[in-house]
Amino acid sequence: MKVLVINAGSSSLKYQLMDMENESVIAKGICERIGMDGSCIKHSTQSGGNFVAEEPMVDHTAAFLQVKNALLDAKHGVISSLDEVSAIGHRIVQGGALFSESVLITDEVLAGIESLIPLAPLHNPGHVQAIKASIGVFGTALPQVAVFDTAFHSTMPQKAFIYPVPYEYYEKYQIRRYGFHGTSHYYVSHMLAKALGKNIEDTKLITCHIGNGSSITAVSGGKVIDTSMGLTPLDGFMMGSRSGALDPSVVTFIAEKENISPEQMSDLLNKKSGLLGVSGVSSDDRDVCAAEEAGNPRAKLAHEILFYQIAKFIGSYYVALGGCDGIVFTAGLGENQEPLRRKVCEYIACLGVDLDVDANIKFNHVGGEITKPGSKIRVFIIPTDEELVIARDTKRIVEG
Amino acid sequence: MKVLVINAGSSSLKYQLMDMENESVIAKGICERIGMDGSCIKHSTQSGGNFVAEEPMVDHTAAFLQVKNALLDAKHGVISSLDEVSAIGHRIVQGGALFSESVLITDEVLAGIESLIPLAPLHNPGHVQAIKASIGVFGTALPQVAVFDTAFHSTMPQKAFIYPVPYEYYEKYQIRRYGFHGTSHYYVSHMLAKALGKNIEDTKLITCHIGNGSSITAVSGGKVIDTSMGLTPLDGFMMGSRSGALDPSVVTFIAEKENISPEQMSDLLNKKSGLLGVSGVSSDDRDVCAAEEAGNPRAKLAHEILFYQIAKFIGSYYVALGGCDGIVFTAGLGENQEPLRRKVCEYIACLGVDLDVDANIKFNHVGGEITKPGSKIRVFIIPTDEELVIARDTKRIVEG
Repeated sequence: MKVLVINAGSSSLKYQLMDMENESVIAKGICERIGMDGSCIKHSTQSGGNFVAEEPMVDHTAAFLQVKNALLDAKHGVISSLDEVSAIGHRIVQGGALFSESVLITDEVLAGIESLIPLAPLHNPGHVQAIKASIGVFGTALPQVAVFDTAFHSTMPQKAFIYPVPYEYYEKYQIRRYGFHGTSHYYVSHMLAKALGKNIEDTKLITCHIGNGSSITAVSGGKVIDTSMGLTPLDGFMMGSRSGALDPSVVTFIAEKENISPEQMSDLLNKKSGLLGVSGVSSDDRDVCAAEEAGNPRAKLAHEILFYQIAKFIGSYYVALGGCDGIVFTAGLGENQEPLRRKVCEYIACLGVDLDVDANIKFNHVGGEITKPGSKIRVFIIPTDEELVIARDTKRIVEG
Repeated sequence: MKVLVINAGSSSLKYQLMDMENESVIAKGICERIGMDGSCIKHSTQSGGNFVAEEPMVDHTAAFLQVKNALLDAKHGVISSLDEVSAIGHRIVQGGALFSESVLITDEVLAGIESLIPLAPLHNPGHVQAIKASIGVFGTALPQVAVFDTAFHSTMPQKAFIYPVPYEYYEKYQIRRYGFHGTSHYYVSHMLAKALGKNIEDTKLITCHIGNGSSITAVSGGKVIDTSMGLTPLDGFMMGSRSGALDPSVVTFIAEKENISPEQMSDLLNKKSGLLGVSGVSSDDRDVCAAEEAGNPRAKLAHEILFYQIAKFIGSYYVALGGCDGIVFTAGLGENQEPLRRKVCEYIACLGVDLDVDANIKFNHVGGEITKPGSKIRVFIIPTDEELVIARDTKRIVEG
């Protein structure tokens, strides 16, 4: 069975065709600048072929036509007929309280995803457009599945998801913690339990997805009990360009002094804060690392804040879980930033983490255990694979 | 030596006359509704006398005249001449980055406190009025000392006090974490070290000031390394009517949906959130306790969130400190809410807290150790005494 995995934004469309017999990626690519000048498709295949083509794409339908052409392309194609694709799986950022697991997309499900747009104005509109476009291009007969970033977090208790603001806003606008990166936290928590040689039901795990966007999750017996992202992916700790949680007075203070609207404020806290805001250098951690290396004190400070905030979150989740068996680092920085893991593990040594400094270097970019034998809490690097989770869920649901 | 301690708000003035020979309170009272209809003074003395009198008080000067009259009163007075008062100590909420310790008030210091009004618009204006009024009433010869809520926190490292927002706002508006309740955290941390039989230089302590306003502080070797309140006393975890830190998107989301100004938002998050917001009952924890007892599920939820958030802060500061020798609960709820301490200690058992359930009941309202002998981390209830710290600092500075 071949499954096409789609991760669509408002102006981009990532795709990956997977062969579920061996869970390999046959082809993948991205359509960029949809609806803008200079739109293009980048496509690559398992066998090493790849091309980049500037193609006008006025909307998601045009983008899906490009994906279809690329998959069927005489030179760089990987299938000879669309019939070879058995199902499409869509990544959906916000499932709200409506969706606690992956579902087959029906008119009702599509309407549900559309109804959640107020909670995810930057993400769900693109998802809806992509679903409609893919039905148009691939036909109604092809089953399509929605996999939600929020679903894995739906087991959180109220004490973790209710914000201490007037309760009427929870009732009126569904303002609560939802959490994101769910498919990643799901994947690495299960991989971590396996690495520990335990049934996940018998584990207390902390999963650290540290990338351009970052979140940390406390997973008890395979169920999420708390997660750092909240109503939106802005909650939690500092990220590439996001502030994380703040004294709300910081928000109102800046709004008053600078006389800016809620929308501008949202932009400022989502796009100009975090590593970028503190360092003044970049939201890309590789740039911040280079600047720190070159002696930039604010780049150093940005990292110090980041490492410290991650360590504090782990401490708080250790208490939330009542102990911890294993911790995993994943995603861009989690897998590839050696000093980040080292500094965080130095902070949490007091919880029973005995870092193997050499293993932390050796398994950088690769994955593996980075604590010494006998460490009370074992820590691993595990590369995440959200597309694989989406493809597996899609296969499972399509097969009934 | 007798010291008059002043804690002035914009419309209230609390005072306490202390005999520093034995550190006893000779008389204390409060002027309420200054500048409003129905202003009154409540006065009580060490010997058990007390009175309440409605007196017009158009401003802080009028209030200080009432305080003076009360102290000299033929029936309820405690001194025969103002000359018996050797100094006045003022509690000042916001000392910003200007004041890292208590200081003798000069014109320059007063100007400094005034310059910090943008950072504490609800507090510093009342302090400035009170200082000017007390100089007017008690004369320029009487030394006056400023003791800052923020001073004890001035040792925090940058990684703890810089918010991950654009750095220019730190430079331009001094937006950073300051922390509050400093005199309380100072007092109970020193009392805790004493209770542990250790020099404070050799301790790692977590001090929990849980009242109508609440904050938790991590104190390493007698120096604050982190604290939960921030730019304003709104930061941290939920309080009587305050939200604590939030996903900033919650702020902008509500602002957009309800179309309210930053000022109204500040009001909502400071006065209508926290225990009041979640329970819908009251910001007074005694009311919330009664409602929970009567079966109100939202009152129960409000407490669950509060206990959980406190426990998570302790976990994060355990990591920040790299371990912990002792934890102290103080202030309204910290000293008097037995279930709060019990539930928090159950959460943090995993850190090495072995609660003595009976001691926790026995020492409620009173103070004492509430962990069993051999508990890795020892936990105490210690009644706070901010006025005593202010009086001691005032005496020390006046004596040179």
